[in-house]
Amino acid sequence: MSEKLEPILIGGVWRDSCSGAYFQASDPKAKQKLPARYPVSPWLEVEEALRAARRAFDGLCGLSSERRAQFLERLADRIEARRVEIVELAQRETALPREPRLNTAELPRTTSQIRQAAAAAREGFWTLPTIDAKNNVRSMYRPLGPVCVFGPNNFPLAFNSVAGGDFAAAIAAGNPVLAKANTSHPGTTRLLAEEAFRASEETEMPPASVQLLYRTSHEDGKRMVSHALVGATAYTGSRPAGLALKEAADRAGKPIYLELSSINPVVVLPGALEERADAIAGEFQASCLMGTGQFCTNPGLVLLLDSAPARQWIDTVKARFEAAQVGTLLGEGVQNALLQSIQALEQAGAEVVTGGQAGGGEGYCVHNTVLRVSGSKFLANAEALQQEAFGNASLFVLAESVAQLQEILSHLEGNLTGCVYSHRGGRDEALYRTVTPLLQERVGRLLNDKMPTGVLVTPAMNHGGPFPATGHPGFTAVGIPASLRRFAMLQCFDNVRHDRLPLELQNKNPTGRLWRSVDEEWTQRDL
Amino acid sequence: MSEKLEPILIGGVWRDSCSGAYFQASDPKAKQKLPARYPVSPWLEVEEALRAARRAFDGLCGLSSERRAQFLERLADRIEARRVEIVELAQRETALPREPRLNTAELPRTTSQIRQAAAAAREGFWTLPTIDAKNNVRSMYRPLGPVCVFGPNNFPLAFNSVAGGDFAAAIAAGNPVLAKANTSHPGTTRLLAEEAFRASEETEMPPASVQLLYRTSHEDGKRMVSHALVGATAYTGSRPAGLALKEAADRAGKPIYLELSSINPVVVLPGALEERADAIAGEFQASCLMGTGQFCTNPGLVLLLDSAPARQWIDTVKARFEAAQVGTLLGEGVQNALLQSIQALEQAGAEVVTGGQAGGGEGYCVHNTVLRVSGSKFLANAEALQQEAFGNASLFVLAESVAQLQEILSHLEGNLTGCVYSHRGGRDEALYRTVTPLLQERVGRLLNDKMPTGVLVTPAMNHGGPFPATGHPGFTAVGIPASLRRFAMLQCFDNVRHDRLPLELQNKNPTGRLWRSVDEEWTQRDL
Repeated sequence: MSEKLEPILIGGVWRDSCSGAYFQASDPKAKQKLPARYPVSPWLEVEEALRAARRAFDGLCGLSSERRAQFLERLADRIEARRVEIVELAQRETALPREPRLNTAELPRTTSQIRQAAAAAREGFWTLPTIDAKNNVRSMYRPLGPVCVFGPNNFPLAFNSVAGGDFAAAIAAGNPVLAKANTSHPGTTRLLAEEAFRASEETEMPPASVQLLYRTSHEDGKRMVSHALVGATAYTGSRPAGLALKEAADRAGKPIYLELSSINPVVVLPGALEERADAIAGEFQASCLMGTGQFCTNPGLVLLLDSAPARQWIDTVKARFEAAQVGTLLGEGVQNALLQSIQALEQAGAEVVTGGQAGGGEGYCVHNTVLRVSGSKFLANAEALQQEAFGNASLFVLAESVAQLQEILSHLEGNLTGCVYSHRGGRDEALYRTVTPLLQERVGRLLNDKMPTGVLVTPAMNHGGPFPATGHPGFTAVGIPASLRRFAMLQCFDNVRHDRLPLELQNKNPTGRLWRSVDEEWTQRDL
Repeated sequence: MSEKLEPILIGGVWRDSCSGAYFQASDPKAKQKLPARYPVSPWLEVEEALRAARRAFDGLCGLSSERRAQFLERLADRIEARRVEIVELAQRETALPREPRLNTAELPRTTSQIRQAAAAAREGFWTLPTIDAKNNVRSMYRPLGPVCVFGPNNFPLAFNSVAGGDFAAAIAAGNPVLAKANTSHPGTTRLLAEEAFRASEETEMPPASVQLLYRTSHEDGKRMVSHALVGATAYTGSRPAGLALKEAADRAGKPIYLELSSINPVVVLPGALEERADAIAGEFQASCLMGTGQFCTNPGLVLLLDSAPARQWIDTVKARFEAAQVGTLLGEGVQNALLQSIQALEQAGAEVVTGGQAGGGEGYCVHNTVLRVSGSKFLANAEALQQEAFGNASLFVLAESVAQLQEILSHLEGNLTGCVYSHRGGRDEALYRTVTPLLQERVGRLLNDKMPTGVLVTPAMNHGGPFPATGHPGFTAVGIPASLRRFAMLQCFDNVRHDRLPLELQNKNPTGRLWRSVDEEWTQRDL
């Protein structure tokens, strides 16, 4: 067991923190602390990192987007080269399965995202160059400064504060990243940061393009996101911590993009139940229990019209949940929070159909849990019954009428996703048209006949939604190139002399392929 | 003099407010209250308007974008038909000149903006439809709910909360507007609302698509922008009031777009002074005194390298300011605030070169004012010396060296614009490249050899910038279609059955001309 604290990465140097305070990650399966000790950085180090990031930003502004693309591609290659070690440590720190998850799903997704971000940097499509040639007014999105990234516990690779989606988007847009590791997988984050730093050296990026701190006090986190040197922040994690950061950043006028909480309502209409109850139960089980339910798009709320088949369907789900393996949760904190959330839902009027207690599997775990509540009870306590139970649990609501179902939908908070299952032959069509508009305006992504987990990385994806799912419904955290625009400002060049313009706005198309809007026509031609 | 209060417009009806509290506008030239009395609405009326707006939103979601375009075009026609009366009342309430301002500049700009917004609604370009056909994932920007608009005092037409740029953008994007009149020109706002309401009736828009309240308490303003039924808010006005609204909206997770304050730094490099000192002084005078300096893009800060020609140039400007007519300010409040700001600048170390006192013209007015401060004094008190002096005043800073000029630029807050004047023959080129990056990242629009007033309504315009110029540097208040996206949420349709998709996302291009992004290629073709 090492007595020494793990080094932090500031200003292009891996070095010791001046702090004596530290934390350790745990192995959630063994319920044991892992030996490595990670420092809790004092404000001094945060500020030093911000200053270094600022210098890196100046450096990045002088480099081509091609260079950023090369850096990202090198990083993806390096992650693949160190795949075995990264997956092994991620597995130990999170208890997420190696297969089919970390090794063949999340790691390839991570490197694919990084390569897509590289392509986006190279192509420049994300900058939406807009030219009024007659008046010589030209504008585009441009980087806005150092980006702080706070990654979540549930995706040690794909949403890691180093090498995850926010990181890749911020770098691709031209900003340095100051990463704050998630304290549940600091070791994985360190491995990724080692690769990122080496990739940055190999491609001659400014030294502080990537920096890593493991932890700060909450107070220093707030100072960080509201600091004058910061361009923007991306945060994925718990709602209370996210709201505290949001308040600090908002007050300072600093953009902050948050992914806070979402229970992802699923409406199953009667015709769909009649037609394919078992199949939907199977899809639901797979979606709700995958990764032990620890997904931001986990289906945590199921809305049904009360009927004998609906009750029967809940029994089917119950049986499936009881028969299914119980997964290990990410840690003791997640287990405690899940048990507390289940208790809170019960206190708010829900009854446990199955599960609700710790145990059933290896390490930190809770029995696969289904809760149920009537529509009127839900409406009597709609806020409390929308508390996210992060993990392998879901609440079923039985609405007594279509009108009550509408009322329930109109009481839903903002969510990342909303699904509607309906009869394939059109038997639910009128009902679909009645309920969907209410759901649709409360979610960032509407699905038909499909569970919400599995967020495809495609330009058409929206992984966002109204508050409190995120902090602003106009932005997405997944889906390149749109996700890059979170880390950008709109800049206009009015009467600026031609040779002083950014390449993207000069008369000649810099790549011959850059899409630019010229008088509301998209074109790839030169002016 | 009427004893009765002017009616408010709620839920499709012009009706009496239940309030006994009222206010009157003033004639700033005559320094007299105007007779009409406008109610201060209690919370009850705000809430009723929000509920009606919500119903209107549901109605609007069922209407075509063509209908919104027709409404906006009808409104533009109606404003032109009532032009004489509108201009006359706007002139009386604001003292802004009929010519060359209200009649031939601002009113045509207003109707032109409305027609551009109509065209944008019809063409749908602003929605950035993005399609991944293979995976059947499709997304676009869509309206997000009732928009509250708080208009400023300085543009009674073009930025009016009814018929101004924010109004037109919010409606074009598909949202109803709840307008809060600026209390300096409630009568003008009423005339515009009458025309808007008639146009909405003629084009069969939902009754509460346009609503008007004249005033609320500050507390109720905060409740309004953070209300669950609100989609977003647009505010243009003073910084303290705007920040109070921002805090309330941020806490509720409601988007709010603010235009708060901006001093629009102008850097005049030595070569430019040497080459064309008089011409630039003329441009500066015209820009700074136009509309009695009451523009958000008024050049309020001029940065020079100290030298004999620079000091001489300030004398030239001084002489021009003293010879120029002194315009009337928008009201007593504006006069008082301007005098206070000048005093505050003096207390912070600036000296008055000319002006600084009330008087010199008709009605509420302050002598055309130039202040001066050394670079080191500016740096010693940079925050206080960046206070906006809204009106016909500007502060000149004499930097002692290039390094000090850079230091000054790096202390500037976010601004809407930044200008650099340089030698035409390239003599300032090295200096330009040294100072511009520092300026550019702090402004939404960089200009060369041109003053910042005159915000062209073109798709390439950015009327935005980093905080505190606005609340988010990624959005523009002028420039269609980009300005529409402020009032929108990103919505994704994942596996949604084809006939349930919005027209814009169906395989057939709905107009044959809608630009859509398909696998990162912009195209107008069908799928």
